[in-house]
Amino acid sequence: MSPAFENLQTLLKRLPGLGNRSAERICIHLLAEKPEISDALIEAITYARENIKPCKICGNLTEDDVCEICKNPRRDDSKLCIVVSLTDLIAIENASAWDGKYHITYGKLSPLKNIGPENLNLKTLKARFENGDIKEVLFALPNDIESEATCHYIQDTILSDYDVHCSRIGFGLPSGGDITYADAVTLKNALDGKRDF
Amino acid sequence: MSPAFENLQTLLKRLPGLGNRSAERICIHLLAEKPEISDALIEAITYARENIKPCKICGNLTEDDVCEICKNPRRDDSKLCIVVSLTDLIAIENASAWDGKYHITYGKLSPLKNIGPENLNLKTLKARFENGDIKEVLFALPNDIESEATCHYIQDTILSDYDVHCSRIGFGLPSGGDITYADAVTLKNALDGKRDF
Repeated sequence: MSPAFENLQTLLKRLPGLGNRSAERICIHLLAEKPEISDALIEAITYARENIKPCKICGNLTEDDVCEICKNPRRDDSKLCIVVSLTDLIAIENASAWDGKYHITYGKLSPLKNIGPENLNLKTLKARFENGDIKEVLFALPNDIESEATCHYIQDTILSDYDVHCSRIGFGLPSGGDITYADAVTLKNALDGKRDF
Repeated sequence: MSPAFENLQTLLKRLPGLGNRSAERICIHLLAEKPEISDALIEAITYARENIKPCKICGNLTEDDVCEICKNPRRDDSKLCIVVSLTDLIAIENASAWDGKYHITYGKLSPLKNIGPENLNLKTLKARFENGDIKEVLFALPNDIESEATCHYIQDTILSDYDVHCSRIGFGLPSGGDITYADAVTLKNALDGKRDF
């Protein structure tokens, strides 16, 4: 194919979830089958890039200074859910599983990858506890060691001065999960996290 | 999410192979995680849209008037492979299965979808036979009724004046295909297309 085609295909392959064939397929769609979509796409990316920015409070994306969730008066101000990424926030929102506010760290502590506290979105977190409104913090971070370390760091250095109740989301067998096929760590988590029935 | 985010997500969902979740994932990547990719992407789409056009001879995409395949002197001028789409051309090229030239019809005849001969890229096809170079035509169209009708139309109205040998690609069991799980039409095709062993 032509160099311009290949250049576009290479770029598309850098997007999450797109491989060689799907990038090729989208190239053909944008250049041959539906060229009108590429104009609309350029316009939408440009507009979004110019207008969308991180919420000053939680880090969620917004077109204003403060995002829809932080602005929403029906959201419980006393509950804060800490997540590592915007995708995790969206997943929890889609599950309608949380009625409080959020804070996105945009990463986990990782000495191996040279990610320290200064690389995370933590600067505004401490200030959120100053007025004493937040009584409950839920760490909705993934089930891995880096997340564990990040939770401990936040609890020890940021939350230690405030009277808040901290919890971690439950670990165990996923919905529809089969015990036969579960890995050892999941099963250990599931047994450690047993509840009264 | 914000309207600009949702607008971009809706547009991305119109691209082939992208669903709700993958479009959301790409939105976040373009707007929050790797904003530098969105600038490069806009540039690449704009450049490709301005510079890539259909080859005047076969319909393949090219940055010149005539594509790399039509220009290539090592390609056999006496053999023409007719395909319905650019993706089919690329698939055959990737399989290194054809050393002749191509012609892309960009569609199949379909009375139900109101697609007639005038909607296909057939205007330049007849002229390609005028100098008598093409001796062999291979119809590499899919295994369905609309393709069958398109082959017959091309053979009866465009190729009838010329002395060319026409053939259709083989139908039957795909590579690695199992007879037990093959559908009835595929098996019938495979038995109809039996060859000496």
